[in-house]
This record gives sequence, structure tokens and C-alpha cells, in this order.
Amino acid sequence: MLQAEKIEQNIQVNLRHQVIFTENVFSVENPLLAELLEPEFHRSIHLSKVVFFIDSGLIQANPDLISQIQEYCGRFLKQLRHFTSDFHFIVPGGETCKQDKKVFDSIIEFMNDSKLCRHSYVIVIGGGCVLDTVCFAASIVHRGIRQIRIPTTVLAQNDAGIGIKNGIDAFNKKNFLGTFQIPEVVINDFSFLRTLDEHQWRNGIAEAVKVALIKDPSFFEWIEDHTQSLIQRDLSAMKFLIKKCATLHLKHIATSGDPFEKGSARPLDFGHWAAHKIEQLSQFKISHGHAVAVGICIDTVYSQKIGLISKEDSNRVIHCFSHLGFKLNPSELVLKNTSDGVLRILEGLAEFREHIGGILCLTMLSKIGSSVELHEVHLSKMTESIEQMSRFGERKIHKLSDKMTT
Amino acid sequence: MLQAEKIEQNIQVNLRHQVIFTENVFSVENPLLAELLEPEFHRSIHLSKVVFFIDSGLIQANPDLISQIQEYCGRFLKQLRHFTSDFHFIVPGGETCKQDKKVFDSIIEFMNDSKLCRHSYVIVIGGGCVLDTVCFAASIVHRGIRQIRIPTTVLAQNDAGIGIKNGIDAFNKKNFLGTFQIPEVVINDFSFLRTLDEHQWRNGIAEAVKVALIKDPSFFEWIEDHTQSLIQRDLSAMKFLIKKCATLHLKHIATSGDPFEKGSARPLDFGHWAAHKIEQLSQFKISHGHAVAVGICIDTVYSQKIGLISKEDSNRVIHCFSHLGFKLNPSELVLKNTSDGVLRILEGLAEFREHIGGILCLTMLSKIGSSVELHEVHLSKMTESIEQMSRFGERKIHKLSDKMTT
Repeated sequence: MLQAEKIEQNIQVNLRHQVIFTENVFSVENPLLAELLEPEFHRSIHLSKVVFFIDSGLIQANPDLISQIQEYCGRFLKQLRHFTSDFHFIVPGGETCKQDKKVFDSIIEFMNDSKLCRHSYVIVIGGGCVLDTVCFAASIVHRGIRQIRIPTTVLAQNDAGIGIKNGIDAFNKKNFLGTFQIPEVVINDFSFLRTLDEHQWRNGIAEAVKVALIKDPSFFEWIEDHTQSLIQRDLSAMKFLIKKCATLHLKHIATSGDPFEKGSARPLDFGHWAAHKIEQLSQFKISHGHAVAVGICIDTVYSQKIGLISKEDSNRVIHCFSHLGFKLNPSELVLKNTSDGVLRILEGLAEFREHIGGILCLTMLSKIGSSVELHEVHLSKMTESIEQMSRFGERKIHKLSDKMTT
Repeated sequence: MLQAEKIEQNIQVNLRHQVIFTENVFSVENPLLAELLEPEFHRSIHLSKVVFFIDSGLIQANPDLISQIQEYCGRFLKQLRHFTSDFHFIVPGGETCKQDKKVFDSIIEFMNDSKLCRHSYVIVIGGGCVLDTVCFAASIVHRGIRQIRIPTTVLAQNDAGIGIKNGIDAFNKKNFLGTFQIPEVVINDFSFLRTLDEHQWRNGIAEAVKVALIKDPSFFEWIEDHTQSLIQRDLSAMKFLIKKCATLHLKHIATSGDPFEKGSARPLDFGHWAAHKIEQLSQFKISHGHAVAVGICIDTVYSQKIGLISKEDSNRVIHCFSHLGFKLNPSELVLKNTSDGVLRILEGLAEFREHIGGILCLTMLSKIGSSVELHEVHLSKMTESIEQMSRFGERKIHKLSDKMTT
């Protein structure tokens, strides 16, 4: 080697990630948010700006939300006074905001118009897609504006909204652009869950089953025991589920040794290679949570077919999702390439590998409550697993009637 | 406070930042780059992709560079073989690439077309603007592709290219969008400096003077003693300057306690509030390094006017820049608002505060080799300081003739 001198420095960073659970965060009876922001305002030399980004779907379900926030800010956050009309931005909810570059650009423009600085707070209230989009924008404006996340769906409160990732889609690829940024705080306000429709309520449970399956067998048992109270919208059961899920999720981020996902192992993406593709093939008519339920079932059947788990355990997983009311055999499972007859969903394997990078690394179950990483896929067994799930309805009816006669 | 339960996790991250010094990095005699990448290739299950982004200005000055890289890759990096024509992307050099959103978008598109994943390497070769633009793109594609920086100008080798920041301009604001991402490695190849023109060679020295002034009095003395050899393009003097500068810079990032600049103190931005504005007012005809020299002189005169440093120290700073050949009285200093007659350069104070965020925090000299942070500015004294610098040419001639008669 020619002359090569080197200087080197190690940079140690200590980050804190916190999720707080509350209800009615914008009630004037609840000073939580104000207290979180207060230390800032007591530094007195300047007042940090605060702007709100709100999911359009949430406003539809909670028409009074904006005036509530206004009242809350009038009461607690004096520095907002000069934001008479422009203190908030309404973001089109659902996948649209992640897919439409114009929405993203207008968010960035609003942040510029509001003259936010790196000490300002962006408070994002909504579902996972809105959180992902706004937090990505906030993470690149001035190289990172402080963000406070207030996830309002089950899915966002137990998965999408409490992690440290954000992103938008591009070139038809999910989360092609994004960053890792730890929010100042995540506030899970359970009262927002009351206005969810039946699908939104159920869909978020899929990610909880996922975390339980790879991390915590007793949590999975608890879900099995509570499928009825969960789908009957028992809020205290849902609160338990969300808290448990958030706890396992945060622990994973902090202790997995790879918070910024430099490596290829990605256990929290169990079932997601198929899920992402199912969403895409359905043109996002199938929601993320629903697709995750189907994706997990496929990989569970596959785990059983290659001998990792027993038939009994595989059935427990599928029945759990089935009892939660998920339709596990969407027609997207059997879409085929016209040229070679290969299942289109299998394209998801290559796309997943490209996004994660490096070698293929799929999470499969080694038993209920723990997982292994696999670097190869038996395509024929995977195809069988997908086809088996596509016939699930038939078998289910059969099984249930079996049960009824016993 | 209403019911508010909290879960919390601390995330510890250990990052390594390294700068390697070499010459002729793409000579087939120099295996450095190949050796840096090699451990990857020995993991054998997959081959990481490598693509090159090259500054157009650099190619003009080094027409053989692309074929050299091709030869190097043919020799050392076998996995590049399938990149017959598309292994590189030429980025328009200078401020254009940071200002023109189309350039940025086409870089992102190239990264997508190349099917890069998070284990791929983006190698960026060029000046600070090209490094900033490409590294920002690489930091958001798939939430961060590995980057190797090869800065090729004095300015990039001792400042812009060796830090952990990147960014592009938007809404007429410098670095409005960007992230912090630590490159896998920075390679300072001194041989690229030989092809720099006189201005590029000199301009980079301004940032070295800045680091010396706030961090290291003996380094400043060394620069004072070597102004002649530096402007006469003595490469060994320049190597010493760059290594010293990089060492101080990395130490600052690692030990300042604020690598991602969450706070408001930003000593490495000494003189930069004025510098950014001078560049903008000149429509970027005045280069960054030149503007920094002028900006530092303004703040040095101001430091003296408010009693922080002696007249003698202030003169040492100004004479050092003058001996290095910088024109310290550009006409932009006296541009005035037609409405109120206020110097336009003063707008830079508010813009700087907005970018850094929070309270105004300006670095001023407390003596040669160390700095203080100020949160207020006496506008009249600052105006006097700017006007004094605008008359610098006259005084300089006077002073030099004084000297000649003694």
C-alpha cells in the first residue's frame, strides 16, 4: 500500500426514546403536552415555534379537533398566539400522502413558510402514513426539526408510529426515501381509537400478533385468549395490547444492537416481504395491517413446511388471525405472471431483499415466540404455502364445522 | 395530570468517523480503496454494488479519471464487471448541483436505476458541493446507503468533505434540506490538489485559518509563518495544513458533545453568518472560501470593537488573510436596502439564526485560538465593522507603506 495515514474518532451518542400513554391529549384538563413542552418555554430567551400536522381522516372522524387544539394552545402554549390561521396543515390521510410527491413538497413548503428552526416542534397527529411522511420532511428540513408523534390508529400506536423510522414511497417502492430519526416523544392517546372504523380497529392487531410471535409466547397466548374482547372493541383489552406491543417494540430497537438497521436481519419485518407486495398488487385496497396478517400466515405455513414449527403451532397462528376476523385468502395471492405463470407475489422477495440490502434475510418462526433468519427460500415450498393460504376459506369452513360436531 | 404512563428506552450508538490520507487513489499501484472494500467482498454470499459520482469540474481537470477508475475497478473490484457503462454518474460541479433540484432528482433516479441497496457503496469524488448533494441523496435512499467520500479540493479536504453533514439548498436558503450521516470513510487524495486553479487552491485555506483561530493558536502561528509557501503551492505545506485541520475538525465533532448539532452553539460556523450572505448577494460569484475569509475578518473586527480581543490580534488575523491573497473588501459589503439604507449583509444574522435555530448564537474570538458564544449583536458596532472591512484596501496600502518606511 502507498502512504496512507489515518485519523479516526469514535462518536458516542446516547439517545432517548419514549412513549407516553394518555387520553384526551387536547383536553384543557390534560396538561401533559404543555408540560412536555414547558421546559423549553422556561428557557425564556426564545419561544420555540410549534406547528401541527393533522391527518385528514382524523379530522373527518373528529370534526372538533382543530378548534380543540386551538383552545388548548390558547390556554397552554402562549407562543402560538401569532399563529392565528397557519398553525396547522391538514395532510391527506392513508397511502396517498406517502405516494404523492406533491403532498410531500407542500409539507416542506409549509415548514419553510412557517419559518421553523431546528428548535421548533412539529407535532404530527394521525395514522402511520401521515406520521411517516411528515416525520421524513421534519427530519430533513434544517437537517432535523424536533418531532412529536401522536399516532391515532391501532396500527400506528403499536407499530408504525412508535418506531424511529419514517419515509415516503418512490418509483413504486415502499419507503424508498426516508431516514431514521428519534422523535422527542410519542404520545399514544387511546381516546382517538374510539372513532376508528371496524377495519382500522382490527388491522392494527396484526402487528401485535407479529411482535408476540417473534418475541413473547405468553403475549401470543393472551391474544389467543382475547380475540373476542378485542374484536368486540373492549378498550381495556386494546390498551393492554398496545402497551405490551410498544414495550416489546422499544426494547427491540434499544437492545437489538442495530437500531439503524445497518445489517440485514429485520425480525420486525416478519411477514412483510409478502405484505408489501400484497398491498401493492391490490393497489392499496388491502390495508397494511390486513396484508401483514396474510403475510405472516404465509410465512408461518412455510416455517412449518420446512420443518421449523409443528402443524399444531402453524394452525394456532392461522386460527388466531381467523378469529380476529381477517380474510386470509385475498385474490392477490394467486395473481400470476402471464408470461411464465409464476405467482406475482413472489416478486416481493427480490424487492424486499433490495430494500433491506445485502443478502436475502427472511424472518421465520422457530417456535411460537421466537424466530430465525433464513437466507434462502425454497421457491416451490413457498409457492405451496401461498397456494395453501389462497384455499384457506374452504378449509376454515370445514374445520369450524368439524369443531361444531365435536 | 391525567393518567400518563410512560415507557422509555435509551439507545446507545457508537459511530466511527475516519479520514485516510493518500495519493493517486485510483492508480492500480494503490490498493487502499480495494482493501477498504475487500472485507465486504470476502463475506462472499453477496457482492456489494459500488457506483461512482464524479464532479464535472474534476473530470475537466483530469480527463483520464473515468478510464483510470474503470481500470482500477477491473483490476480490484470484480463485482463491478456488470456495470459496463453505468457505473458512474457525472454531477455538475459547484453550487449548481446544490441549487438545482433537477440535478438532485436525477441522482436519486440513478441510485434507483442502479438498484442500490443499503449495503451498496456510493463513492463520491469531487468538491464540497458535489459531496453535499450526493451524500444527502445517499443518506435518504433506502434510509441510507453507505457512502465513501473522496474530496478533491482544499476546501473539501479540510472542511466540507470531512464532516458528517450534507445538504442541498431550497427556497434560496443554503442547506435548507439535509441530514447528518457519517461516511464509511473519507479519503483525502492529495494528488487531486495539483489540478486546482489558483482560486480553488487559496479558498480552502480560509477554513483552516478559521479552525486555527477558534481551536489552536500554534496552528495559527504556523499559518502566519507559511502564507508564502502556501500561496506558492508548496504541496508539503498544504498537506500539513489539511491534516492538522482534519484532525481538529474530527476532534471537534467527537468531543464537542453535540455531534448532531441539537444545540445552538456552532463554533465551526465562525464567520459564516456573513459568509453565507456574501455568497448569496454575489449570486455565488464569490466562492465559499473567499466569503469565509471576509466573514471571519468582519467578526474579528467586531470582536475587537466590543473589547474581546486586542487591536493587535485583530490585525494579525486580517493581515494573515491579506497575505494569503484574499480580497477582503468585496462590493457586497456595502450593498444597502433601498428602503431603509440598512446594509443587506445584516440580513444574514436572521437567516443564520433561523438555520441554527433557537436563540442567536454567534461565535466570536476571545483571543487567538479560542472563542466565545454571543447571543446579542450591537448592530451599530457590527455595521461599523463591516464598513471598516469595506475600506480595507485603502488602509492596507497605507499600512504596508508604513511598514516599508520603518
